[in-house]
Parts: sequence; C-alpha cells; structure tokens
Amino acid sequence: MTGLLPLIEWVGVAVFALTGALVAARKGMDPFGFVLLGTVTGIGGGTLRDVLLGARPVAWIMDPTVVLICTAVSLAAFVSAHHFEREGRARTLLWADALGLALFAITGTATALASGAPPVSAVLLGVVTATFGGIIRDILAGDVPLVLRRDVYVTAALAGSTAFTAAMAVLPLEVAAVLGFVVGFGLRALAILRGWSLPQYGQRADE
Amino acid sequence: MTGLLPLIEWVGVAVFALTGALVAARKGMDPFGFVLLGTVTGIGGGTLRDVLLGARPVAWIMDPTVVLICTAVSLAAFVSAHHFEREGRARTLLWADALGLALFAITGTATALASGAPPVSAVLLGVVTATFGGIIRDILAGDVPLVLRRDVYVTAALAGSTAFTAAMAVLPLEVAAVLGFVVGFGLRALAILRGWSLPQYGQRADE
Amino acid sequence: MTGLLPLIEWVGVAVFALTGALVAARKGMDPFGFVLLGTVTGIGGGTLRDVLLGARPVAWIMDPTVVLICTAVSLAAFVSAHHFEREGRARTLLWADALGLALFAITGTATALASGAPPVSAVLLGVVTATFGGIIRDILAGDVPLVLRRDVYVTAALAGSTAFTAAMAVLPLEVAAVLGFVVGFGLRALAILRGWSLPQYGQRADE
Repeated sequence: MTGLLPLIEWVGVAVFALTGALVAARKGMDPFGFVLLGTVTGIGGGTLRDVLLGARPVAWIMDPTVVLICTAVSLAAFVSAHHFEREGRARTLLWADALGLALFAITGTATALASGAPPVSAVLLGVVTATFGGIIRDILAGDVPLVLRRDVYVTAALAGSTAFTAAMAVLPLEVAAVLGFVVGFGLRALAILRGWSLPQYGQRADE
Repeated sequence: MTGLLPLIEWVGVAVFALTGALVAARKGMDPFGFVLLGTVTGIGGGTLRDVLLGARPVAWIMDPTVVLICTAVSLAAFVSAHHFEREGRARTLLWADALGLALFAITGTATALASGAPPVSAVLLGVVTATFGGIIRDILAGDVPLVLRRDVYVTAALAGSTAFTAAMAVLPLEVAAVLGFVVGFGLRALAILRGWSLPQYGQRADE
Repeated sequence: MTGLLPLIEWVGVAVFALTGALVAARKGMDPFGFVLLGTVTGIGGGTLRDVLLGARPVAWIMDPTVVLICTAVSLAAFVSAHHFEREGRARTLLWADALGLALFAITGTATALASGAPPVSAVLLGVVTATFGGIIRDILAGDVPLVLRRDVYVTAALAGSTAFTAAMAVLPLEVAAVLGFVVGFGLRALAILRGWSLPQYGQRADE
C-alpha cells in the first residue's frame, strides 16, 4: 500500500473538477472561470481536510499535481462540453459528483485515522472531505448546495466512511478502501437510479 | 478554574447544534441532514477559532465530545421537533442562537487571550467564533445570514467580548466570564424583546 | 526591500475594507455591521493565505494593525458614505475592488514563493488571496460573487500573479511587484473601461 490512496485522491480530484467545470458551463463562464471553479471544487475537500488536521502547509502547495489535474480537466471541459447536450451534461455532473463523494469519503477518513484521530472524528472528517468541494462549488455558483437538495447524499458518504472505518479494524487498507467505496458509491447510485429517499422531517410532521 | 470554559463551550455547542437542527426541520431534511447541519453549526465557530489560532489539529478531531453532543441534539430534534408548532420552533431558534452567541463570544476571546493575542485581536476572534457557526448554517440553508438581518447582533457579541476582555484585567476568569455573558446575552435579549436597533445607514442617508 | 510588501498589504486591506463597507451601506447596516463586513473583506484573503500556508496563528492575531485599518476605514465610510450618490459609491466599489485584487495577487504570490512553494502553487495562492475577500463579502451580503459576474476578473489576478512570478526569476522583488501590479490592475482597468470580456462558454455553444 503506497499507491492506492494517492490514486483515489487524484481520481476524486479529477471528477470533482469536472463537476465544477460543468457548473461553469451552465453559468456561461470564460476559460479562467472554468479553471477557477473546477480547481476550487477539485481541491476544496482535501484542502479543508488538511487545514482541520493542521497541515502546514496544505498538501497541494508543495506538490501541485492536483492543481494541474484540475486545470487540465477544466480546460478539456471548456473546449469539449458544447459537443454534449444539456441533459447529458447534467447527468455527467450527477454521476461524477457521486464518484467523487465516495472516493473522498475514503481518503478523508484514511488520512484522519493515519494521524491518530478516533473513529468518530475520522468518519466526520470523511464526510466533510467528501461534501465540501461540492458545497463550495454550489455556493460560488449561487445554487442551493446539492448536499441539501438530494436525498441519500450525506448518508452515502457517511455509510462509506463508516464501512471503511469498521473494515480497517480487521482488513488491510486496500480491501477496506474498496469495501468503503462500494458501500458509499453503491448507496448513492441506487439513490440516483431509483429516486430513493429517507423519511424527511416534513413528511413526518404532516402525518 | 478548570471546568468553566469547557462547560461554556459544550453548552454553546449544544444550543448552536439545536439551531442547525431547527433549520433542517424547516427545510424538511432527512435525519442525516439534521446531523450534518446541526454538527456544522455547533462546531463551526470553534473550528474556525482553532484554525485561525493555528491548532494542529483542531480540537474536536482528537476529542470528539462536541461531535457527539451535536449528533445527540440533532437526532433528539428530529424525533421531537414535530411536537412543537412552527412559531414555537422559530422562537426557540432565535433564543438558542442568542445564547450560543453570548457563550461563544466568551470562549473565543478567552482562548485567544490564553494564547497571547493582544486584546483587539482577542475581541475580534470572540466575535468571529460567536457568529461563524450561524453564518455557515444560514449560507448552507440558502438563507440570508441572521448576522446581517438582525440588529444588535454583532454588537451584542462585540459588547460581551469587550466586557470580558476588560474585566479579565482586574477580575478572576470565572467572574469576568459571567460578566461578559451577562452583557452579551442581556444586550441581545433586550434587542429581541424590545425590537431595539442601532441607527442604520439607510436611515441616516434618508434624513 | 523590507517595507514594500507590508505597505502593499495595508493598502490592499484598506481598499477591500472600503468595498465591504460600501456593500454594508447598500444593505443599510448599522455601524457594527459596517465594521464586521469591512473587516472580513479586508482581512479575508490574507487570512486564507496564512491558513493554507500553515501559519500558527494567522498574522493579524499577533499584529492586529490590519484589523485597526479595517475598523477605521469602515467607520469613516459609515459617517461619510451618505455624502456621495449611489452611482458614485458603485463606481468606487468597482475600482477599489480592482485595486485590492491587483495588490493581493502580488502579496499572496510573494508570500507563497517566500515559503518555498513551486511557481504554479504560488500563482494559484495569489489568485485565491486576491479573490477570497470579495467572495466572502458577496456571499455574506447575499449577492452573486463579483468573481463570477465580471469578465476578466480572475484573469486579471492570474495575469498579475503570473507576471510577478516570472519577473521574480530575473528581477529584484520591488521591480517584479510593480510589474505584476501594472499587468494585473491594467488588465482589470481596461476590462472595466472598455467592457472587455473573454469568449464565454455560452457564446461558443450558441454559435
């Protein structure tokens, strides 16, 4: 296990950057707007994780690989996004966001556990890492954050993060990471495909 | 004085978590949405304080007591909030927010003073700690931040923080903390009860 | 070169604080609202820069000069802003924001380079420092962030930051700073005066 976590991180960064760029497309931004929104979305979750853990400095400042990934993905989206229909872009955004959510839940939790955090904090940090990039993206774009609009969203991050934390007690990291990813992404995917939702407050109150 | 500040912190965390959960109720969120919004609101101010002071990591990562408090309060709100009327929930939110504001102004200022910050910075950090959780709550929920809507809000935090800082020069911490709380909460309470407001820019300009 | 960077920082803080206070004027806030919004806008970019670089604590906590600058500017704006027309205030906000943008792009980049960050990270940190104060200001006030509304905005920060970084390789800091400022501010000024904009996604897609 040396290469799995960075690989997960890079893929997560790339797909979140893509979601940022797709929002930039919807807002009709210029190329630098694509890069800014793509980059902030791609590195936002990991940056907050590093800040909360007390990194000095945060990881991308000394190794800007993830910044370059975000720039490349955002520019590729700028030159190619108009080949796809609006509907296709919305679907891509939803699935890329789901993928990033499940991947970042693992890296956030793994990083926290590696620095000695107790399980409950590690799980919370996983959820925060997974959701923060998308929250910044939506706030900057003036949208209601996806985290509040979609059902089984936070829940999926929490389930993936919890499954990973529990599995880490008895399984090697690689297996635990795959398991956590399958749980988190699977739950979110089922929610998207089947329109699943949990009992909401309003529904309870109205009964 | 070993137990007063943590106690103030815990009560502040609990009441701010309650305000986050009440906003989640108004938005008709699912249980995990309650927990996320309650937790972010409850620990948001203290987290920013720790980050600005350079904590590595922020306090709740190594001792997640406050996370557990937020989770418990949020779930309790989910299962019980529908027993109360909308009007009662709005009033509870307003008063819990006022209580958290006054309490966090003290802990933010005290922590800054304890780490050697000069008084003016300690007062600003108190205000930031007191207002930030509520700001995140309102932004995440898509509302105009309470800090901008209500009069004598920032002012109350600033008065409590300033009174506490001044009192610390001549009084023991416990007495100064009680004094600062009375000033901050009292001012905010009077503002709520009597509809107090300061002269605003628009009023001046129109005269 | 001992005094140039702090001087640039102070001027940048003052003009950004002014933009925050002008937004407070438009929202009809009370004096403490002016000070809060002015201060958060003035120190926001530098605070994020310090946090990302791992400062402990952030600079203004130990030396609150910039906090005092923000307070003074905000109060001066409160007592004087109603002497000016709405139109004049909007123009002042736009130009003060442009000035702060160009100045903070330099200080953000210079601070990152001084702490050993590679050029691409230093440029990104310059852009983040330059834009973040204005982003917080607009989000707190419930406006769509200027960074997303105006063309050649991020671009100007990026150009100034890149020009400064490139010039630092061959020129003394003072000269590089002046060059970077001229590039960044000049580009933004031309964009404001001539209504310049880059090709946007929507335009491309519609053609």
